[in-house]
Amino acid sequence: MTTVLLSLADWNPSRWLASLREVLPEEKVIALEPDGRFSGEADELEATEYLVAWKPRPELFARLPRLKAILSVGAGVDHLLNLPQLPQLPIARIVDPDLTARMVEYVTWQVLHHQRLGPSYQTLQRASRWRQLPQPAARELTVGIMGLGVLGIASADILIRLGFRLTGWSRRAKEVAGVVTYHGDGQLTAFLRETDILVCLLPDTPKTRGILGHRVFSELRREGPLGGPVLINAGRGKLQNEAELVAALKDGTLRAASLDVFQEEPLPASSPLWNMENVVITPHVASISDPATLPRLIARQVKRMEAGEPLQFVVDRAAGY
Amino acid sequence: MTTVLLSLADWNPSRWLASLREVLPEEKVIALEPDGRFSGEADELEATEYLVAWKPRPELFARLPRLKAILSVGAGVDHLLNLPQLPQLPIARIVDPDLTARMVEYVTWQVLHHQRLGPSYQTLQRASRWRQLPQPAARELTVGIMGLGVLGIASADILIRLGFRLTGWSRRAKEVAGVVTYHGDGQLTAFLRETDILVCLLPDTPKTRGILGHRVFSELRREGPLGGPVLINAGRGKLQNEAELVAALKDGTLRAASLDVFQEEPLPASSPLWNMENVVITPHVASISDPATLPRLIARQVKRMEAGEPLQFVVDRAAGY
Repeated sequence: MTTVLLSLADWNPSRWLASLREVLPEEKVIALEPDGRFSGEADELEATEYLVAWKPRPELFARLPRLKAILSVGAGVDHLLNLPQLPQLPIARIVDPDLTARMVEYVTWQVLHHQRLGPSYQTLQRASRWRQLPQPAARELTVGIMGLGVLGIASADILIRLGFRLTGWSRRAKEVAGVVTYHGDGQLTAFLRETDILVCLLPDTPKTRGILGHRVFSELRREGPLGGPVLINAGRGKLQNEAELVAALKDGTLRAASLDVFQEEPLPASSPLWNMENVVITPHVASISDPATLPRLIARQVKRMEAGEPLQFVVDRAAGY
Repeated sequence: MTTVLLSLADWNPSRWLASLREVLPEEKVIALEPDGRFSGEADELEATEYLVAWKPRPELFARLPRLKAILSVGAGVDHLLNLPQLPQLPIARIVDPDLTARMVEYVTWQVLHHQRLGPSYQTLQRASRWRQLPQPAARELTVGIMGLGVLGIASADILIRLGFRLTGWSRRAKEVAGVVTYHGDGQLTAFLRETDILVCLLPDTPKTRGILGHRVFSELRREGPLGGPVLINAGRGKLQNEAELVAALKDGTLRAASLDVFQEEPLPASSPLWNMENVVITPHVASISDPATLPRLIARQVKRMEAGEPLQFVVDRAAGY
């Protein structure tokens, strides 16, 4: 029998605890309170071999001498890699078909919303005005996806079927069927120059932080049939420089944006983004972990490692994802 | 050499005339003015064998003794079948891959907009409020498509890939891969009872006119995870009873609606639909004819018939589509 510890900041652990115990009936599953307290015995913490974590406190690791692996409950692992006391143990990301499906829905929704001029028609509707606007076809637009991981590739697949031209940019060279790919700093400008709708699904790493700023916005394709480029950020809030983003949305460098993530979350009520007619705000819900699915994926990883098999979806700590 | 006459109400024919002449260089192509006048010689009208039409005037047919076929420039043909003096000649609809692609974009966009709670998040955004709402997965929702023609089947294909459960209803029995199908008056209630999002792509016929009214709305699934059923009408405005629609949207019989077509178009500024937060209005742009594509499809039909081949996409006048 092994011990699995849940440390989920901000969330009530009771539902997670119940469902994880159900899928790991032979193991001991314990949990910290959302505030980081542990109400059980100290030797239970000492016996912990697997940490299931969302934003754990850095001081936790000193209390887990037998820890073998860290299992992130999110697709992103920036909440772990930023921790100063992070031990040199394997860290696995969640790759959840359900999280992927959610993200594909969000990306498809927002790409269509801008292609079909949703923000403009909303403004006309509020003024009770009937006016048909010139409407670019999907095949006239290039959607450029930054970040060609599982989420980016699945999103590209549906967008290609809808008729869009797809390009992608990633840190390392990748080949994706039906997608014209670029990589590295050297090819970023070439990628941006032909992009009408920029979809950002990058992880938060020291190399990507703040990348969505004036330089990137100003290099996007300006002469496309939408009348200006659009940004969709469903990656991480720290990727975007919000001061430069607001300026670009005001001066027309960007025609519009859909933002699911922000530098500070919740987005402060004082942010000018809330009241911009060319901005679609959702409160970090593009793809959120479903308590019904994730415990099964976590249990599978624990069982693999206990059976002597390697963990799946292990993070490359140097790359940051 | 044959003569092809354009009669396009409300549209300036010059662009159409130029492009149709380009694709039919060996035929004579002439056009009526938008107001129905003809500025050429009477014998040109008499020589006309093909009428390319959008809402032609009924008295036109008496002036076209040699007419062989009528080619609608729209997918719908209610603008022709309602005419009292319509001759007994083959009438062909347009089946344009581009019109199909446009409709699939619109249907996918609006289904996702409601599944992902777009109207609710817009209301929250206007109030600068950050609040995550319970979010049903695509697989928890049934999208029911009324009208299983080319547009309905192509829309279902993408929605299935996004994870939705698909059902369909048509006048006659049909089989569509991946779609649970119903047909006829006898199976309408069974179809509606399991539908969360109703997508209407029916043609306007005496049997379908006014079908989108209280009876249909009240039979939709009420206990689904969206908290009430949604109507998306991209078919024809005459299908909907707008007084009953407004009442259903106010009393919660319908949670929300996306309307591209209306009983009267342009939708009068006095319509209460404009100001309802749970209604998405677009001005009959879900799928509109592209002057760049349609002439090629029209030319293909003329060439087929001149070569002795049968017309494609001939309308069944008894069925009305």
